[in-house]
Formats: sequence, structure tokens, C-alpha cells
Amino acid sequence: MTVMPHWLSKQSFLQPDKSAVEYKDGSFVTFRELERRSKEMAGVLYNMGVREKDHVAILSPNDPSFMEIVYGLSYLGARVVLLNVRLTSQELLYQVNDAEASLLLFEPSQSDKVESLREELQVVSFSDLEGKATVPGLKEEIDLDEVFTMMYTSGTTGNPKAVLHTYGNHWFSAISSALNLGLTQDDKWLLNLPVFHISGFSTLMKNVIYGMTIEFHESFEEDEVLRSMKERGVTMISGVSVMLERLIDVVAKEDIPSSFRCFLLGGGPATKHLLERAQDKNIPVFQTYGMTETTSQIATLAPQDAVRKLGSAGKALATASLYIEAEKGYVGEIMVAGPMVSEGYYKKERRQGRFFATGDMGYLDEEGFLYVSGRKKEMIISGGENIYPAEIENVLAGVEGVEEIAVAGVSDETWGEVPAAFVSGRNVKREAIISRCKHGLARYKHPAYIFRVPQLPRNASNKVLKRRLVEMVEAGDLDELE
Amino acid sequence: MTVMPHWLSKQSFLQPDKSAVEYKDGSFVTFRELERRSKEMAGVLYNMGVREKDHVAILSPNDPSFMEIVYGLSYLGARVVLLNVRLTSQELLYQVNDAEASLLLFEPSQSDKVESLREELQVVSFSDLEGKATVPGLKEEIDLDEVFTMMYTSGTTGNPKAVLHTYGNHWFSAISSALNLGLTQDDKWLLNLPVFHISGFSTLMKNVIYGMTIEFHESFEEDEVLRSMKERGVTMISGVSVMLERLIDVVAKEDIPSSFRCFLLGGGPATKHLLERAQDKNIPVFQTYGMTETTSQIATLAPQDAVRKLGSAGKALATASLYIEAEKGYVGEIMVAGPMVSEGYYKKERRQGRFFATGDMGYLDEEGFLYVSGRKKEMIISGGENIYPAEIENVLAGVEGVEEIAVAGVSDETWGEVPAAFVSGRNVKREAIISRCKHGLARYKHPAYIFRVPQLPRNASNKVLKRRLVEMVEAGDLDELE
Repeated sequence: MTVMPHWLSKQSFLQPDKSAVEYKDGSFVTFRELERRSKEMAGVLYNMGVREKDHVAILSPNDPSFMEIVYGLSYLGARVVLLNVRLTSQELLYQVNDAEASLLLFEPSQSDKVESLREELQVVSFSDLEGKATVPGLKEEIDLDEVFTMMYTSGTTGNPKAVLHTYGNHWFSAISSALNLGLTQDDKWLLNLPVFHISGFSTLMKNVIYGMTIEFHESFEEDEVLRSMKERGVTMISGVSVMLERLIDVVAKEDIPSSFRCFLLGGGPATKHLLERAQDKNIPVFQTYGMTETTSQIATLAPQDAVRKLGSAGKALATASLYIEAEKGYVGEIMVAGPMVSEGYYKKERRQGRFFATGDMGYLDEEGFLYVSGRKKEMIISGGENIYPAEIENVLAGVEGVEEIAVAGVSDETWGEVPAAFVSGRNVKREAIISRCKHGLARYKHPAYIFRVPQLPRNASNKVLKRRLVEMVEAGDLDELE
Repeated sequence: MTVMPHWLSKQSFLQPDKSAVEYKDGSFVTFRELERRSKEMAGVLYNMGVREKDHVAILSPNDPSFMEIVYGLSYLGARVVLLNVRLTSQELLYQVNDAEASLLLFEPSQSDKVESLREELQVVSFSDLEGKATVPGLKEEIDLDEVFTMMYTSGTTGNPKAVLHTYGNHWFSAISSALNLGLTQDDKWLLNLPVFHISGFSTLMKNVIYGMTIEFHESFEEDEVLRSMKERGVTMISGVSVMLERLIDVVAKEDIPSSFRCFLLGGGPATKHLLERAQDKNIPVFQTYGMTETTSQIATLAPQDAVRKLGSAGKALATASLYIEAEKGYVGEIMVAGPMVSEGYYKKERRQGRFFATGDMGYLDEEGFLYVSGRKKEMIISGGENIYPAEIENVLAGVEGVEEIAVAGVSDETWGEVPAAFVSGRNVKREAIISRCKHGLARYKHPAYIFRVPQLPRNASNKVLKRRLVEMVEAGDLDELE
């Protein structure tokens, strides 16, 4: 059992007047003020009946109240169930029941969706969180073994499961990232990823664990990102490829101040084209590999290796271990361990032993750099050969005119399965894709079909729904690209 | 149980070609090479019979072999007993027996002292550590709960006790320091404090936990320190007041490069005079409070507060808690907790509960800054008033001509005890001391006697032996200052 002072109280004590959270309009909240508000919120929530170990769900986009509610719950020792605002009422119903939440707090914009949930549990709008109360005994200490958050994994198949994150998972994740990226008094992290996903939430954790200022945006807007870097001293940002693309489109090389030191890129490998464009624009890109179960990144590739090790997610962080369930050099399931890896899912399977089977396939090169080949369950077996859709997707993502690309297996009388490509983009040409395949992929990996789609179907977490694509093929709903 | 990859193996994997240890002559050892040598050393030690959980004592000044021997033992899962080279054979005998060491490894310069120990245990010189062997199963993972080192506390009274340090104590200490001081790729820490004390050993831990280059000196030489800062990119250094004094004497303001960012000052509060001189010379001084039992610093004062909070040791680090066993604002025993605090002493008392009673007295000011008043057992009770020698020492340390000063209680018929001052320094004048007392100390704290000593008697850890001073007074061996 490792115990330490509550992160927010401690930062409020160490640097009371430092700005904890800044906003686009220049307003800010100091650590002392964030602590004061969070403790006041703890009083409000206590008055509403929230007690230690209670499960309280939050349904909120990136809203300034989010932090004080989360820390208010933390001061009460309650667990926070984070809900995705893109979910339907039906999906929310499943999750609040599965999580055994006794209370749902929602940001006012979400009011329509929660109406039908009122029969199931207490439902309260952020705008009704008022009043004052003294709580007998706020939790001024954190036990790293206690569960802090529950986040549903965005599986594209099956029912979602709540990943349990202890305080320790969050703390070791933040510390491991600092050991990798370094830490200075001038660091300022831009948060515009959703706070209900680990990608955004982990930035909140760095905020209070490091005592680092964050800039808080409601959503990603490339112009605002640029302004934050140029005018407001943002030095680090997390994002996915599409954000990096959009940022590159609006920035000139001179725009990037030398103080900007990290674009932490998650959500799958980047294309060479994108990395080269980023390099041209002086944006230092750190590619990462991680998931909800690893409490965000568990492996990272430094910018100096970005082009040399194209497509790699780098090496496991200082506190983490990683191996491939296969013979040396071969593709196999990626196995990870470390103090940031979740114990498992609420009321469902717990991790057996130290290593977590990620469900992702990958391999290590001779220097030990990780390459992710795709999801285990997405693997296509064609004529006895294993084919990983992500590999084909990576090769084709840079083809002229391609806006989105996905690859999935479709059944085939001869080969069992064959890969099919699904492409969006007005100006994309069949020959361009075939020509790239000839250059970059073994014959058996060439897509047997190239289908045109207006856009890829995605779930609430923005993951492509490949099953739906296959169903559309089977239903004869798609045309081949010409 | 928190497990992570072995720190040295991990750094060797992450940055194989980075220099781990650099020397004054410009030579260096990379992380890969340090790992290779340490594993080779593990083989040599295994051949000599060292096994998991064995206690192996090391008697060595700052010698380059020290690191590979320590990590070699770590790869075998053995515990390292660190011995002070200033000890006599008699004292060493006590410690190797108390620690139940099965093997003593000594650096050749220590050969005379270990002769008489050969009857007690296996004794081997560093120069005989040769050969090759393959170890079945090196420890490639670290369990933070396992004991790594044992260091004897340098009590001025009673028998020494071995403080147990787990890997976790060392890891959390290093991390907490990084959260306080920050961490960059360019950091380079100068190590010239003894490696057998926590002050020096903790720099070795930062070396492999951060993956930070250190520069390794045999001992403190102010000219070499200056050269390291100016020519070899050293950015941080730990030391005590006398080292800072000597450094200040040889540096000009222009000598300190802007890259130098921290002089971590331990071993008791600094005088205002010293801090002002450091400020004049552009040396950023971080005053600290810590001890072997807290695995080095547990509280730190940042340079920007150094003069405003003169004499303070700052605030407890991010993961640590600290309170005073007294009513608010009053002096009482300093109580500390945190994952860097030792569980206790080998075969002796273990910590009860979360907090460790330091045996030091102190108070917190209204902003929560810690002021250390002295050792609990050194406290003087004079006419019902508590007097802390350190407070008087701090006031008098800046008096013209004073080289060393110590204060201790001597018995007195009227008051029970009265404080006596012991002063060295050729040109120190009685009036100067009395005049400073009048300005800076309540009447009851004025020393009733001011004795002249050629130099203060100290133990192997450089702590002043106050009991001996009192004995000299009682024997009539000292003259009062004129």
C-alpha cells in the first residue's frame, strides 16, 4: 500500500498561485482556487448523499466544471464513471447499470439524452450543483491501490466493459511519461481531447501530479492550437493523426516556437508522408502506443527516430515491460506489464499474472522497437497467411486522394478470406492504390477488392466499424472503386 | 507489490549509447557498457557464492568499480551493506556482524583495515573480482518492496543501526526529487559526496532511474567542481555548506553558466551570509531537509524563497507528508511520511504506522515552511525554557571570524542547564558574538559560556560530537574565549 498526499491539495500547498487551468480567453484558475472549488463541490455532493466507494457517473463534454466535480468526488473517496457524450440513451443505460452508478451528473447540453435514465438512478445537472456543506473528513491522502475511475472500452464488437483505473495506474502513467518526455517549470499542456477518454483524462492527471499548467479547450480547433503555441506558451499537446494533419495545414515553419517541444501522437501509426510534413514544419512528433487498459501511452517513439523507424511505436516506457507472444522477430500478440496497466474490468475478467494481453498484434525489430500490425481479432487469414489490416492501411494511407482507408477480411471460396479495402476521397484513383500495393506489399496482402465509401462508419470513440463494412459488402451495398 | 524492469537494463535498452558515468579526464561509460560490466560482475560474484537475499558489505571510497559491484549484486537479488571508509576496524566489525554480511568487498586502499575481519567473514578485494560465469536467471525485474541497501546511521550516541532501504524507497525518492526540480535530457549531476552515504548513493539512483548522465568525482575539490560546471556541462550538484563556501570562494559570477540550475544543499540550514554570497555569485541554492531514514531529501526550499525564508528547509516533496508534533506554530518533533521513508532498522525497531518520528525538532511558519530547530536529544532545558542549539548556531555562524560553531547544554545549579557555545577561528572576538546574541536571540538563549576550541570533534559522518565537548568542559579542558 503506497499512500501520498492528495495531488491537488499538495499542489495547492506547494504552488498556490500558479495557474492550474488556463482558458482560451486568458482566464485561469490557480491550484489554490481549484482546490477550494473542488472541496466546495465535495460538500455539495456529500449533501446529495455521495459517500466513500459510491459510483458516480459523469456525462460531460470538455467543460470547466469537470475538474472540480472529479476532484470533489475524489475528496469523498467516490469512484468516477466516465461516460462518452457520443453514446445514445440506450448505450448510456447499459453503462450506468453495469457500473452500478448511484448518481449521474450531466453537463446541461446532455439533458435530452439523460431523461430516460431518471427511472434508473438519481440524475442531476451540473447547473444544479449548488449549496454549501461541510464534509466530515475529506480524503487528504491518496492510496494508490484504490480505484479512482472507470472508463468503458470502445470495443467494436460485444458489450462494453468498464476498465478499472486505480490512483496508482494514473500516477505511474503520469510519472512514466515525465521520465520519457522530461518535466520543466515552463511546461504547459494543451488539452483538447475528450476528458472522458483516457487520452484527455491523462492530461488532467499530469496537471495535478506534476503541478503543471494546462490549457483547456472544449474541442480541437487547429487555429486555436496554433494560437496557443504561438501566443500562450503551450509546449506540449496530445492528439491523433487527423489533428496533426489539420494543424500542419495551417502552420508555417516559423509559427512553431522553439519552446514547443512535443506533439504526442496516439491512435495508431502515422504515415511517412505525415511525419515528413511534420518534420518540415518543425513539429516534434512523439508516436505512442497505448489504450484505456494501459492508462494511455505505454510505448513511445522519440522524434529523432520517427522517420528512421517509420511506423514504429517505439519502446516501452521506463516502468513498463513489453514482449511479443511469438518467436523472435515474428508477429504475435503484444503483451504489456507495468504499474500503469489496469487490473481488469468491473465485474468482468481480471488480469491473470503480470502481463496484459492487449489484443493487438505486432513485432519488435532487431533494436527492440515495437511495430503494431493490427488488432488480433481483425486479423485476416488468407490461404494460410496471416494478414494484418493495419499494415495495408498504413501503406495505402499516403496514396493521393485517399481521405480515409480501412481494410477488413471478406470471405472467399478459394482462400478462405481475402483483404478488402474501403476508401473515401473524391479524387482517389484505383490505379494509384494498385500501384502503391505493388511497391509496398507482398502479393497476398493486396486487397482483392477496393470499395468506395462516402465515409467510414465509426463508433462513438471514432473507431472504424469494420464489421459494418463487411456487412455492407455482403448486402451488395458497396461499389468498387474505378 | 509494484514491479518494474531493472533500472539499469531499461536505460541500457532505451538509450544504450548515452553516457551513464563521466569522469574528470573526459572518459565515460555508456549505459550499455555499465549494464554489460554489471552483469559480468554478477557472474563473478555468483561464482564466489553470492545468492539471492545474501548480505554483501562494501567498503569503498568513490571508486569507479562501485557502481558495477552494486548493480552486479542487484542483478543477483543480494542486499548491499554500505560501510563508511572513515570507520575503524572495531566499528566495521560491529557493523558486518550486525548486518549478518556473508561477504565483504573492499577497495584496495582499505586493505589494512579489513585484515582483522577475515576471521569473521569472507573478505575480497575489488582487485580480485575477476573471471567469467553465467548466472542462471539474473533479476531483470525490480520489486519495489524488496530491500536493496542497508546503511548505518551515524548516531553520535549509542550503537549504529542499519537503515533498510527498499528499491521503492530509492525509486520514490528519485521521482519525488524530479517532480520538485524537473528533469531534462541535458541534466548532468555531479557526484562527489561519499557513495556509502545516502547523499551520494541517491545520485547513483537518479543516474539509472532517470537515465541521466552523472559526473563521478572521488571527492570534493572546488576547482574541479568549477571546471565541471564551466567545461563539462554539469547542471546539478548536491553538497553541504562547507562545500558551497569553498565553491563560492573560487568562482566569479561570470563563471556560472546559465545551464547550471541547482546546488542541492543538505546537512542543516545555511546562514544568511552564505545564501547571500551564493546569490551574488548566481548559484541557485535549494536547501533541503532529509536523513538516511528518508532516503535523502524529503523537504526542499526553492532558491526564490531562500532569503525570504531564511533558515527554512522548505516544504515536503510531492509524495511526502510532514507535520509537527505540537500545537500549531510551536516547536515539536518533525514527523514525516511518504513512500521514500524507510520501514525501519535491521533487526531493530520498525516504523509503527505511517509517520516516522525524525528525532529532529522544528516548526512550520504560517505558510507551512519548515524550520528545523535541532535534534530532539540535543534540546537544552534552561529554567523551564526549551532551547534548540541549532537556532543559536545559525545566528552565530555568520559572526566575523567564526569558522566552526557548536552549541550544547552544560549543567548549571540555578537553571538546570545553560547553553554553551564552542567556537573555532583565529580571529573571532568575544564581543562580536555577544553583540550578535543581543541582536538575534532572546536573553535565555544567550550562551552562558563561550569556549574556544582549535576545531570541533566530529564522527566519521562529520557530525559534531557534542557529548565530547561537554565532557571537555566538565574536565576543565577548555578556555573561554576572550
